[in-house]
Amino acid sequence: MSFDRLISKIVTTENPTVLGLDPKLGYIPPELKEKSYRRFGQTPEGAADAILCFNKALIDAVSDIIPAVKPQVAFYEAYGWLGVRALAKTVAYAQSKGMFVIADCKRGDIGSTMEAYANAWLGTVGLDDELYAPFGCDAMTVNGYLGSDGIEPVIKVCQEQDKGVFVLVKTSNPSSGDLQDVKAENRTIYETMALLCDKWSDSLPGKTGYSGVGAVVGATYPEQLRELRREFSKLFFLVPGYGTQGGSGKSVAGAFDENGLGAIVSASRSLMCAWQKSPELSFTEATREEAIRMKNDITAHQLPL
Amino acid sequence: MSFDRLISKIVTTENPTVLGLDPKLGYIPPELKEKSYRRFGQTPEGAADAILCFNKALIDAVSDIIPAVKPQVAFYEAYGWLGVRALAKTVAYAQSKGMFVIADCKRGDIGSTMEAYANAWLGTVGLDDELYAPFGCDAMTVNGYLGSDGIEPVIKVCQEQDKGVFVLVKTSNPSSGDLQDVKAENRTIYETMALLCDKWSDSLPGKTGYSGVGAVVGATYPEQLRELRREFSKLFFLVPGYGTQGGSGKSVAGAFDENGLGAIVSASRSLMCAWQKSPELSFTEATREEAIRMKNDITAHQLPL
Repeated sequence: MSFDRLISKIVTTENPTVLGLDPKLGYIPPELKEKSYRRFGQTPEGAADAILCFNKALIDAVSDIIPAVKPQVAFYEAYGWLGVRALAKTVAYAQSKGMFVIADCKRGDIGSTMEAYANAWLGTVGLDDELYAPFGCDAMTVNGYLGSDGIEPVIKVCQEQDKGVFVLVKTSNPSSGDLQDVKAENRTIYETMALLCDKWSDSLPGKTGYSGVGAVVGATYPEQLRELRREFSKLFFLVPGYGTQGGSGKSVAGAFDENGLGAIVSASRSLMCAWQKSPELSFTEATREEAIRMKNDITAHQLPL
Repeated sequence: MSFDRLISKIVTTENPTVLGLDPKLGYIPPELKEKSYRRFGQTPEGAADAILCFNKALIDAVSDIIPAVKPQVAFYEAYGWLGVRALAKTVAYAQSKGMFVIADCKRGDIGSTMEAYANAWLGTVGLDDELYAPFGCDAMTVNGYLGSDGIEPVIKVCQEQDKGVFVLVKTSNPSSGDLQDVKAENRTIYETMALLCDKWSDSLPGKTGYSGVGAVVGATYPEQLRELRREFSKLFFLVPGYGTQGGSGKSVAGAFDENGLGAIVSASRSLMCAWQKSPELSFTEATREEAIRMKNDITAHQLPL
């Protein structure tokens, strides 16, 4: 019903980071891609196979030192249903290695439609008599623009299945302010969204004090991270934008509480493409080395604040 | 680059409505479902096959009188990659029958991620040398909470591929006001979003005056529909919420301009489940009859305002 399982993995690995799995073809080492193309042709099937093989190798490289993976669903949909099948297999593989899986799908709809999304990504779907878990992830990201009707169906599935949800609050991109920084009734829209999350979080209490409703807050907005951390003690943060987008150990320091908890920082390209900067290493060694560097960068700034 | 193709189909059929394809298993006539289960078992594959057969029959029943279909992606994801494959086949089938396809996926992300979504739903994806069209829809719905960074990649694909995009402005659900009705700088958030759409629409001009950037405005908010129609003459509206959700020909009248253009009204359940109310008809006849009733209901209130 909360992020307790995720937090427990963060404590065990002493590492509040998550491996983003955003498999653009250009991120995959050529020799790996060629192997899949030889088997399935330079086709959507070949691309999907290359993505799955790359993901599995990355998971094997870091599953003992990184607690979670965050597949970005867009990059799987880009290869149609074959890409989506590779995503389902990636989720199952990461969980078999003990990792917590956050589906970065940013879904947002209403009523029975949102229920279908929640069941697809976190829960089960009825086949008249039987139940089927389409993706079975541990948490998903959602867009709260549609209001409570879009969140309540997800919370219900989280309650039933011990899962969590991250709501977009202040996103990492340069134009996130177009709407999110608009001021209404003395607060910004992203603060209004955080207040809604705080209200929703009462339905998913956690043992650590953090609920099962979290907030996405970009590493590129350090001041907002710090303010939101101070104001919303129950919201666990998913922090994208580390690395290539400009976030650093220093810029995310404010996301954490005095125990070094309260947030998980995501990096995709810097971890997945570490091999491009370290030609002397295998691609898995390069990712592992970057994972350790990232962990040290973040925990160094985290303690003591 | 705009909704000219859609508008031309609306003019030909004299029908500003769209068939929502939200295939819950309970919507499918039992005999049709049983046929797929006999072939593939009561499995995700059987469910996906039943969905596809149902969709094809509905498309056959109305493709000469309804200009467009709007599959709700959630109900396909609910059957995992097999459901997503049934969706891709549904899109191709509807287009082969001359229908305009709006992917109701409400995607919203940033930069290269949003580019991947736009390529997946509307465009093509590179396989190093080759190009592949994962879903190839004619338009998609998006969530603009992330600002311009989330819209520009979609506009680029629309420009290149002659496609359109509908941005969520005022959604049909009861709690849409949680965020969308918040007032900031003398206007609501949904008006702020409409203003952003109006700005973005300059990049996708159309011959009819309507651009390729449209707005989703619910049939359940007739006053807001009328106000937005008056204020934003370039935005074509996608209007959900007709029928089961409470919208009627009268409540959507304000969505149209003096020529009866400017909007397309969506219904899903009332069309897909028409057979449940008319046991004397075949399911396809029942849907066709309801489609004609809906068209007459909407056009009766539309002219003259």
